[in-house]
Amino acid sequence: MINREEVQSRIARMQSLLKDKGLDGALFIVPVDVYYFSGTRQNSVLWMPVEGEPMLLVRKSFSRAKEESVLADVRSFPASKDLPDLFSSRIKKIGMTFDAVPVHQLNYYNKVLPGCAFTDISVLNRDVRSVKSPYELEQIRRCGRALCLVFGQVPHFLKAGMREVDVAAEFEYRLRKAGNEGYIRMRAFSQELFMGLAVSAGGAASYGCFDGAVTGRGLSSASPGGSSLQIIKENEPVLIDYTGVFNGYLADMTRIFVIGRLDPDLQRAFEVSLEIQAFLQKELKPGALCEKLYQDAVEMADRAGLSKCFMGMPGEQARFVGHGVGLELDEFPVIAKGFKEPLQAGQTIAIEPKFVMPGKGAIGIENTFAVTTSGGEKLTDMPDAITFL
Amino acid sequence: MINREEVQSRIARMQSLLKDKGLDGALFIVPVDVYYFSGTRQNSVLWMPVEGEPMLLVRKSFSRAKEESVLADVRSFPASKDLPDLFSSRIKKIGMTFDAVPVHQLNYYNKVLPGCAFTDISVLNRDVRSVKSPYELEQIRRCGRALCLVFGQVPHFLKAGMREVDVAAEFEYRLRKAGNEGYIRMRAFSQELFMGLAVSAGGAASYGCFDGAVTGRGLSSASPGGSSLQIIKENEPVLIDYTGVFNGYLADMTRIFVIGRLDPDLQRAFEVSLEIQAFLQKELKPGALCEKLYQDAVEMADRAGLSKCFMGMPGEQARFVGHGVGLELDEFPVIAKGFKEPLQAGQTIAIEPKFVMPGKGAIGIENTFAVTTSGGEKLTDMPDAITFL
Repeated sequence: MINREEVQSRIARMQSLLKDKGLDGALFIVPVDVYYFSGTRQNSVLWMPVEGEPMLLVRKSFSRAKEESVLADVRSFPASKDLPDLFSSRIKKIGMTFDAVPVHQLNYYNKVLPGCAFTDISVLNRDVRSVKSPYELEQIRRCGRALCLVFGQVPHFLKAGMREVDVAAEFEYRLRKAGNEGYIRMRAFSQELFMGLAVSAGGAASYGCFDGAVTGRGLSSASPGGSSLQIIKENEPVLIDYTGVFNGYLADMTRIFVIGRLDPDLQRAFEVSLEIQAFLQKELKPGALCEKLYQDAVEMADRAGLSKCFMGMPGEQARFVGHGVGLELDEFPVIAKGFKEPLQAGQTIAIEPKFVMPGKGAIGIENTFAVTTSGGEKLTDMPDAITFL
Repeated sequence: MINREEVQSRIARMQSLLKDKGLDGALFIVPVDVYYFSGTRQNSVLWMPVEGEPMLLVRKSFSRAKEESVLADVRSFPASKDLPDLFSSRIKKIGMTFDAVPVHQLNYYNKVLPGCAFTDISVLNRDVRSVKSPYELEQIRRCGRALCLVFGQVPHFLKAGMREVDVAAEFEYRLRKAGNEGYIRMRAFSQELFMGLAVSAGGAASYGCFDGAVTGRGLSSASPGGSSLQIIKENEPVLIDYTGVFNGYLADMTRIFVIGRLDPDLQRAFEVSLEIQAFLQKELKPGALCEKLYQDAVEMADRAGLSKCFMGMPGEQARFVGHGVGLELDEFPVIAKGFKEPLQAGQTIAIEPKFVMPGKGAIGIENTFAVTTSGGEKLTDMPDAITFL
């Protein structure tokens, strides 16, 4: 459970940004946003005035929201006609997270609060969430520990002849037994992910819709990402990339397993991915510029003669090398072009330099780090080395 | 893979509705909608003119969309400034599914297509999707068969002393090995579901945010639905409710397992749930009115003296007894008040009369049925009886 001070500090940071933007308050309706600012993820809406106590309006379950939330003002969601009575007539400008709010919902609030104008605060929301408190860092560490324990068990079950989905089932089973909550939240429109993936060379070197280096072939054109029915073979890299969810917080990591020997080109690319990771880990300090870090990573891949297979299949390469993680898998900051904001202490970033070689498979590394004054603190703390079986 | 005739028939049905509404076409941007009308779920947008061939504009992966889609016109998503060139200047009124389109996205299309006005077609879209073709019915049957095979294995692994999440892990492992795709799509804003749940009496008789009879306690306030760490005991109902996903299509079913004996009140309530299901199955014929069926089900529960525990915890009962399933878990039609449209042959509905008794647990049944002229065809075909271990 989140304590009251934690939530109050989050609210204060958001209220300060709302004030800078000249807003009278913000209406949070996306569940993960409501959870972050209230401590409960029930079906509810959070009104946060620019000053003073927020008000949680609950559709279902009221009793559970009351039990879980650290906010003082928790009420049942009123009839639409009574909603305006809850808002002072001085409230005119209201922020909302347009990145994840459906048009239907905005239209509803426009209709029932006719004197109010709604403004996008998606970026403010993501900025506040990007910096983690010590409590949040501990949640991500806990998730990292659970992931590492399952990664450590892979040598006990991975065998040639298994289908990718069999390996996935074994991994997911152990992660679930460890208390994994399962449902992975993503912010980006059109992105969906089921826990993670275990892929053979063929499955890894596939085109896909997921905005990542390795998408997997998936089980059908309706669910075209993740593990497929392809068979795991000897002498190829098996890439296992999973996201855990514990107490709502995610960590993300990837390790490579090989039954037999590895192609020397892949081995060399793996070493380059470790070099890029080591460079970025050293640089994950407050003040570093994401855009610059991305450019440096691209140049390292280029100098190694691997730019054509860096971060994805030829022609459809992902254009980032790290992404924020927290309550969602795609938080700020992103180590990518266009991200000009300096890093801040407490931001948590999955760094994942990977290379995809058609016909040979995918290779690379991924760990979740916290930004600190002495560089990235590894929150997914197990050896990076390829496991040879 | 979906064949071309299947997709053409879907498009023709939607185009006819667009014409009735006086629209020049529709822009589908929600992945599941794009999949339904194109055969591919890549990161792409589908322009469907009111007459003629649709055009699929693909962000990622182009090669995979081209390979999977049965549409003739598949292109790369253009630069924003070039988007208007793809649309005839006669195009003015465009439909969009405002129920699931984020405000950001609508604002983007408003900006790049300045001469166009966007209108909500959420209900038309859900109406078209609600009626399944023979191909779709076969996908749901296949999903139902896989679910039944796993339900049939429950007696091999369910034991007193297991945590709910252990039972969930065993169920999910077997479903995944059977080829379950995992990611469950839902239409309703704010609803999230990870595969399903296995719950003890205590976990079942809990309040929660999920819009269903039994939500489960979940593993944290951040993920407050589904299986929890509660221990499965003897002489209580263990309710197992899972959704499978095969080739994108869902089926939904629930069975009850008891280690030992069952409280007579629960046994009696179970018999009432079977009576309600039998009544509804008989009535699932073209022309029946959902609202009337719901009212009849409520009256049956009432006559049995069970209205206070019908479909949920006291005071927070779900107000439906059946929901459409297909590519999403919450499709049309809904067997609920306010649904006045007559049933149509080929609609697929999960019927789930359940009773929740605080202190005793939850009991009931759920099967997925197709509407046919001779009543509901059971697509999750295994015995309904409680399994006593």
